[in-house]
Amino acid sequence: VALALGIDVGGTKILAAAVDDAGEVVVEERVESPKDGGSLFDAIGDAVALVVARLGGRAAEVHGAGAGLPGLIDLEGVLHDAPNLPAAANSAAGAELRRRVEAVLGRRMRVVVENDATAAAAGELAFGAARSVANAVVVTLGTGIGGGLVGNGRLLRGERGFAGEIGHMVVELDGPRCACGGQGCWEQFASGTGLARLGREAALGGASPLLAEALAARGEVRGEDVVDAARRGDGAALDVVAAFARYLAIGLSNLAEIFDPGRLILGGGLVRAADVLFATVPERFAEHRRGAGEAKVDIVVAELGERAGVAGAAALALGLVT
Amino acid sequence: VALALGIDVGGTKILAAAVDDAGEVVVEERVESPKDGGSLFDAIGDAVALVVARLGGRAAEVHGAGAGLPGLIDLEGVLHDAPNLPAAANSAAGAELRRRVEAVLGRRMRVVVENDATAAAAGELAFGAARSVANAVVVTLGTGIGGGLVGNGRLLRGERGFAGEIGHMVVELDGPRCACGGQGCWEQFASGTGLARLGREAALGGASPLLAEALAARGEVRGEDVVDAARRGDGAALDVVAAFARYLAIGLSNLAEIFDPGRLILGGGLVRAADVLFATVPERFAEHRRGAGEAKVDIVVAELGERAGVAGAAALALGLVT
Repeated sequence: VALALGIDVGGTKILAAAVDDAGEVVVEERVESPKDGGSLFDAIGDAVALVVARLGGRAAEVHGAGAGLPGLIDLEGVLHDAPNLPAAANSAAGAELRRRVEAVLGRRMRVVVENDATAAAAGELAFGAARSVANAVVVTLGTGIGGGLVGNGRLLRGERGFAGEIGHMVVELDGPRCACGGQGCWEQFASGTGLARLGREAALGGASPLLAEALAARGEVRGEDVVDAARRGDGAALDVVAAFARYLAIGLSNLAEIFDPGRLILGGGLVRAADVLFATVPERFAEHRRGAGEAKVDIVVAELGERAGVAGAAALALGLVT
Repeated sequence: VALALGIDVGGTKILAAAVDDAGEVVVEERVESPKDGGSLFDAIGDAVALVVARLGGRAAEVHGAGAGLPGLIDLEGVLHDAPNLPAAANSAAGAELRRRVEAVLGRRMRVVVENDATAAAAGELAFGAARSVANAVVVTLGTGIGGGLVGNGRLLRGERGFAGEIGHMVVELDGPRCACGGQGCWEQFASGTGLARLGREAALGGASPLLAEALAARGEVRGEDVVDAARRGDGAALDVVAAFARYLAIGLSNLAEIFDPGRLILGGGLVRAADVLFATVPERFAEHRRGAGEAKVDIVVAELGERAGVAGAAALALGLVT
């Protein structure tokens, strides 16, 4: 069996795994993401060492290593903009990863680095919800919105490697400011941040005792607060969830118009509240889409869950997807 | 030299040509698009017969035929939604074209049908502005907005063949109604229709004597009226053009975020007023785009002009692009 190391780097934790060529996770380890970006690759090296130690003799079966990183990664493996790991920006991520992996394993191998959402798309393409289609968009809904694109059965990385920044698609011309410098970006509405923003507005509007309580207790409303309040039947929170679902559906409709994907695959942290947040999305989506010629697009939840990134990074390292 | 017939079907005219494998148009003919969709393919047959007659002995060099049609075309060559040719909707376009072409040429050959903007993208990819890049979006700006996508050096048709409907990307959540049934679609702002709508608002606002005159004379303001008035220094018309350029730039920015294209290629009828309409677009685009990591995207005018469609349809028939 061929194995590869897959590493998924988030703003708070690093998940490292040994994955086989059927997508099974053989061993996995978690370490914290360092706040100081200078040591990010050392932390990755630590995680890799833990995985390799647990692999024991099977370490000989490791044929490559891949990492998904939350930022813009060019085709030479340089990490550019990385909002959640600012100190790691402009680092030679591919070379840094290679150095750690080869130090641990003591031999040369294939090493790849990729944007985290693109790595998740690689995972779904190799082993998950995108296996059966030639065109798909993986939409990762977390603090922001990331995207991984599959076209003609291959990943679409774009000319420089920066494709998939679907969260910065403008859906409201004069909408709220985004951290990117733009206005009205999709992720200002349909991400965890967007949900929290809508929840805060509802709390300030006074219609929701539960959200007002959350705001008073912590000085902020989190996406989780909105989900909890909606589960408890809070009317204003349910309105927020309805607005959120409409925004999410409109962005998905845009992606469907542009790509005609066989599947729109939803991943990321918000999937944990799929029952509340996604329930009405297919209906809102269908309302907005045109009739006749346009067949239905499947909107599904990512099959690999939080392991999509490590599985995809490993699949890329094994050359199972390109 | 291998030749192919390329046919570009618009709402008002059909352009048919014999194109060689270097993209040179050897012979071309124009006929009017029938208002009655039932005879659309007969009109195409007439145009093909005119081209073949003028080719004379070189008709033996014709290896295939392709057509670009303004509508949604599935991967089996069936034309679905076709707003400008309603009577041709739901026709088996591929089979109909094959029948006419083979009747004229008296032998079987490769016949392909494609969405018109995708055909234009095929032309630019084979012979024009997309030759030097692996990822590009061809944006056809006319009455509406069409799109042809190139990813990893290949056309992206999507799962059913309906990709590229970029004009129906929502850029303003509660914006004006679109003929598609949605609200705030990009083509309500950045197409000929959008320009006319903005011009009409300016005329009704009373700030533009020239646009008010156009409205009084014909009961409507056309995009051309706005362009003419702007050329003559009309302040309100210049404001309309500035708003139009901003809308165009924001949609292009969305496409750049999503695809990371090497080039954004502008085609379609509005290109004739590029000096007025596109002058400030790169600047508006750059303002909206994020800094550092994201290199500049080239925004260029289509190289093949109104022949992109016939050249692309021929290139597809010759198998020069896929």
